Amino acid sequence: MTVDQSALGTVSAARHRAWASSDAILYALGVGAGVGDLALTTENSIGVTQRALPLMAVVVGGSDPTLLHRVDDFDPAFIVHGAQELELHAPFPVAGAVTSISRISGIYDKGSGAVVEVATESVDATTGSPMFTSRATAFVRGAGGFGGDRGPTRRTEVPEGDPDVVVEQATREDQALLYRLSGDRNPLHSDPTFAARAGFDRPILHGLCTYGFAVRGLIDAVLDGDGRRLTATAVRFSATVLPGETLRTEAWHGDGEVVFRTRRTDGTVVLDGGRLAYGA
Amino acid sequence: MTVDQSALGTVSAARHRAWASSDAILYALGVGAGVGDLALTTENSIGVTQRALPLMAVVVGGSDPTLLHRVDDFDPAFIVHGAQELELHAPFPVAGAVTSISRISGIYDKGSGAVVEVATESVDATTGSPMFTSRATAFVRGAGGFGGDRGPTRRTEVPEGDPDVVVEQATREDQALLYRLSGDRNPLHSDPTFAARAGFDRPILHGLCTYGFAVRGLIDAVLDGDGRRLTATAVRFSATVLPGETLRTEAWHGDGEVVFRTRRTDGTVVLDGGRLAYGA
Repeated sequence: MTVDQSALGTVSAARHRAWASSDAILYALGVGAGVGDLALTTENSIGVTQRALPLMAVVVGGSDPTLLHRVDDFDPAFIVHGAQELELHAPFPVAGAVTSISRISGIYDKGSGAVVEVATESVDATTGSPMFTSRATAFVRGAGGFGGDRGPTRRTEVPEGDPDVVVEQATREDQALLYRLSGDRNPLHSDPTFAARAGFDRPILHGLCTYGFAVRGLIDAVLDGDGRRLTATAVRFSATVLPGETLRTEAWHGDGEVVFRTRRTDGTVVLDGGRLAYGA
Repeated sequence: MTVDQSALGTVSAARHRAWASSDAILYALGVGAGVGDLALTTENSIGVTQRALPLMAVVVGGSDPTLLHRVDDFDPAFIVHGAQELELHAPFPVAGAVTSISRISGIYDKGSGAVVEVATESVDATTGSPMFTSRATAFVRGAGGFGGDRGPTRRTEVPEGDPDVVVEQATREDQALLYRLSGDRNPLHSDPTFAARAGFDRPILHGLCTYGFAVRGLIDAVLDGDGRRLTATAVRFSATVLPGETLRTEAWHGDGEVVFRTRRTDGTVVLDGGRLAYGA
């Protein structure tokens, strides 16, 4: 097991993925949308036009998981999601199909662990027009110390003082069981035995599920529920959440964006340096 | 709008439907399975073999909905599920494919409404061997009085006295939003506007969802969680349930079966004359 820094720049095969209206509903339910969000959770309510949550783009256009293994034969139990960025080049549709290509865009040595950054470009599978760009970093606990570069420190800092917007959201004990049906079947989020081997008392919530809650809440609170206005968002995953915890997202207004962080029940910040940019 | 009694015996075209492991999980979550039911809700937990809930057979092998319209141009807002029976000729698998043929097996005049009974035979799509038989009756409010036969009265009566088994289960406010992803998108269960037109204060839970909760609970309480032992089950839908209500299923032991009924929060019986037969 040696981190192969020469894997930087490796490009994946093109992948084709399609999603339907029912997938958009399943994703929305997975990040806690419910009877108050019929545009997100139904396709046939009278006078309601179905909408998709834009962060679903990171599910259908996420990193090629095989790329990580071009760097090292990492133990999946020690891989956590470190950070995520998404740029939308067009509104994310309720149904569609994309062709995606991933590229290893960074390999960093943080001492306590290795960081591998993968950038994925997704284009409309029919027209070829750019739809979105996802950048995900995997943090691999215990895999640092291979003599690599520490990498850039890109931090969005949240302001001092009281937030302009606060969103409180309850997650459910079985939240991860539902969220995983949108694609990420890592048993770290569902199997107590596997979670124990990875050093957790219980299965933990997907970081992208927590992030999905926060983005859904901010779209409601800041964008009047219109996710098509979202143009970019980013976040760092700073601590784990257990299914059933209550999330509190605190946001500050900026110029065409909000910056935000999200806390779990005990007040620990779980999403830090969050950013959500939007158009008119 | 006249009930056409000559439609009795009409047979549907053969329909082919397949389901995957993830569909079995979605169904299980839809009827309230959760983190305590990893065999039903995960496919990759260490030391756990995935199982399907057998009542999912009525979802993948349900009535052809077009048959009802061979009887009359019923207003969908006035159609409710009256009763359901299921016979399993083999254990219901986690994944599979069936070919199903439905037949109008009864058209009855109850005065206050019309009852249309549809029997559906499903065979393994590959081998042709019988898998299950579903019999569903639709009760159409206000469509009676056409001078038809009242039909047979087949009632399983529950005993007097205290039940041998009691199962309490909470449903969730958004239960129907999740259950409907298994197939029945009737907006009576999700759209407040549509539900109001049908005379309900709020969208009501699918009768098959309530039934799915009861069967899941009885499989745990009576069959040690092994749904493969279930050979037949039947129930009458006697009152509606609102998402969020708590269900109380009361069962009495018989010879190779339990009889049961299910009450909603206010004590009203919502599933009556229930029967669940099982083998060793």
